[in-house]
Amino acid sequence: MSEVSRRRMFGLAGAGVALAGAGAAGAGIDRALGSHPAAATTDIVPFSGEHQAGIVTPAQEHLHFAALDVTTKDRAELVSLLKTWTDAARKMTRGQDVGATGAIGGSPAAPPADTGEALELPPSALTLTIGFGPSLFDDRFGLAASRPAALAELPAFPKDKLEPARSGGDLCIQACANDPQVAVHAVRNLVRLGFGTTEVRWSQLGFGRSSSTSTTQSTPRNLFGFKDGTNNLKAEDPAALDEHVWVTEADGQPWLAGGSYLVARRIRMHIETWDRTSLDEQEKVVGRAKGTGAALGQTAEFDPVDLHIGGAGGEPLVPVDAHIRLASAESMGGAKILRRGYNFVDGSDGLGHLEAGLFFICFNRDPRKQFIPMQKALSAKDSMMEYIQHTGSALFAVPPGVSETGYWGDTLFEG
Amino acid sequence: MSEVSRRRMFGLAGAGVALAGAGAAGAGIDRALGSHPAAATTDIVPFSGEHQAGIVTPAQEHLHFAALDVTTKDRAELVSLLKTWTDAARKMTRGQDVGATGAIGGSPAAPPADTGEALELPPSALTLTIGFGPSLFDDRFGLAASRPAALAELPAFPKDKLEPARSGGDLCIQACANDPQVAVHAVRNLVRLGFGTTEVRWSQLGFGRSSSTSTTQSTPRNLFGFKDGTNNLKAEDPAALDEHVWVTEADGQPWLAGGSYLVARRIRMHIETWDRTSLDEQEKVVGRAKGTGAALGQTAEFDPVDLHIGGAGGEPLVPVDAHIRLASAESMGGAKILRRGYNFVDGSDGLGHLEAGLFFICFNRDPRKQFIPMQKALSAKDSMMEYIQHTGSALFAVPPGVSETGYWGDTLFEG
Repeated sequence: MSEVSRRRMFGLAGAGVALAGAGAAGAGIDRALGSHPAAATTDIVPFSGEHQAGIVTPAQEHLHFAALDVTTKDRAELVSLLKTWTDAARKMTRGQDVGATGAIGGSPAAPPADTGEALELPPSALTLTIGFGPSLFDDRFGLAASRPAALAELPAFPKDKLEPARSGGDLCIQACANDPQVAVHAVRNLVRLGFGTTEVRWSQLGFGRSSSTSTTQSTPRNLFGFKDGTNNLKAEDPAALDEHVWVTEADGQPWLAGGSYLVARRIRMHIETWDRTSLDEQEKVVGRAKGTGAALGQTAEFDPVDLHIGGAGGEPLVPVDAHIRLASAESMGGAKILRRGYNFVDGSDGLGHLEAGLFFICFNRDPRKQFIPMQKALSAKDSMMEYIQHTGSALFAVPPGVSETGYWGDTLFEG
Repeated sequence: MSEVSRRRMFGLAGAGVALAGAGAAGAGIDRALGSHPAAATTDIVPFSGEHQAGIVTPAQEHLHFAALDVTTKDRAELVSLLKTWTDAARKMTRGQDVGATGAIGGSPAAPPADTGEALELPPSALTLTIGFGPSLFDDRFGLAASRPAALAELPAFPKDKLEPARSGGDLCIQACANDPQVAVHAVRNLVRLGFGTTEVRWSQLGFGRSSSTSTTQSTPRNLFGFKDGTNNLKAEDPAALDEHVWVTEADGQPWLAGGSYLVARRIRMHIETWDRTSLDEQEKVVGRAKGTGAALGQTAEFDPVDLHIGGAGGEPLVPVDAHIRLASAESMGGAKILRRGYNFVDGSDGLGHLEAGLFFICFNRDPRKQFIPMQKALSAKDSMMEYIQHTGSALFAVPPGVSETGYWGDTLFEG
């Protein structure tokens, strides 16, 4: 099968769901009840641009996030891999197979150039976003002088219970798509192309996007059952993105201009404890009504938050230790972040409970001024801390978007 | 919010996607690009019937499977829980909240009756299917005399590497839906209702259904990149289902008539090894062409398999150790199973690899005559065994469908 065949099949099938495999006469056309609508066949998010896709792209339904360590010490090998990855990412985000010969072309005596599990699936709005961890800027690749000052290991926060096997990494790949098999396929093929150069340090699946990144999306709910990210930064406010998300040349390292910093935090939720907590207490912890999502004292979800309304006993209606108060721009001196996390359930914990929570991802222009002070305040004062535990952590510098002829990280390695 | 509000919201919204939360003025209507089509608002699979839903129901896109142990020794408490669960399942499969007061009704001083994360989401073809493990029939609940002879622990198979923490269980809940958050919400709420009576033994998420159960569906691909389950039993062949899936009164225990046996096997795939294997070798291992899914020697996916075509060197074209040969009805004396598995990726294995594979689920009328001999043959001879490892295992008797006024397991506990 040629490299363009996934796309070609969609074209041949015309309008409607294009799922009949080449030669698969008799195969049904619906992948399952209610999934993969016809519109998905044109569901391609452009790979190239000023910024990487997958940051302000309207958040897709599914995440596969992988952190990798580089095992080679050869800078040229690393650059070669980044070029190979870029080529593969261009193809996969268009719904094509990886490699010149695709999944089932090429020599029968050789391994297929693509692993095949995304054949017949539409592009599914796949985005692939890469990041560079602080450890990449050690003495292995001659990058020490290019390390941005903001790209340092995150400090320890009170009550962190971080697992090294869920933290850190030289590189990260964030794959988001509306079909988890498409996201998994993309990460798996990049990992495969990295054999001998990189290896997986940790990986995380997520679903049910736990924030919206566009005003065209409704606000989803996290596994506490609350709408999450109502006041998130949105793609439709480019001035706010310039202020809070995109790094500029003036920020220090010119190679990172147009890029950002990605913070990943795996947050285990003690859902069993939460579920035994009264509605009143839950709403005080969050600072919002569970049903409407309105801030306490307000009527509708998007009514402006007012932290100064008085409540019973002289206490403010939005408690002093409420999550939305501590995380608010008002409390944070104007600092905001772009949240882009996902819910997760990773089986069970061996103690009779589901292992569930929020895989928090945010993008910010300078974690020293945004995520870190925010998390310091939350970890010290947020009443929600009783119900959560941070079990994984990582920080990555996210290079700018790639031109039509460039490759991931070219401004760093060619700069 | 009342117990009917999730449904009522869909009704009020009329045709189209009903995603605006109550009072959520200004919220967008699209949950994300290309997902949750309008048709999903009528996407309800009936809970009651002769057989439980979730067996021959066209396989949904997502799975959350949980095995639980019963912690009470009081039969009445167990029966009470099964009644509570049935009531909750009826509501959730209709897209309603659990409990009389719903997610955000009731007293603010009490925990909400529903955890809330599925508010505003459509029913998503949710099915909930329950099963009883061999261990439930010990001396705790007076069920020993009702244990079907076929409900015994599965034998050890060659090359099994079973983890106790991923095996067994007194009860199982299989939740399937086209939205993972709906499946997770359902399991989480049943688990919550079981606090003090049951606890989670293990749990597994899956995606990308690894078999079709209806001729209206195309055949999906597993993480080896091959179409999986081409010759699966299908809902449209009731005679074959009667022969191979549904237990009859004559099979032994009358309470199980109309039920089945569910076998769950967590199968880790060594995808890195597989990905370095030639296309030719991959196709010989499976016995099918990777692209079309046609059996070796055939042209199209659904062409009948011919195991007798000669190949090079006097060997048959479909090798003697090919997966489809060993698992075929022809090799198995006519025995067939209904496969209903899902792909999974559970992070990484700590050794630089993705922890990926197939969560195999099948339904069969008598595992002693179907799954067990099939797995004995496969585990001893299948060339695919080099690329997989069974890490979890469980067997459950699946009671028949529930009447409009009945409860899960009533034929067992009231019989």
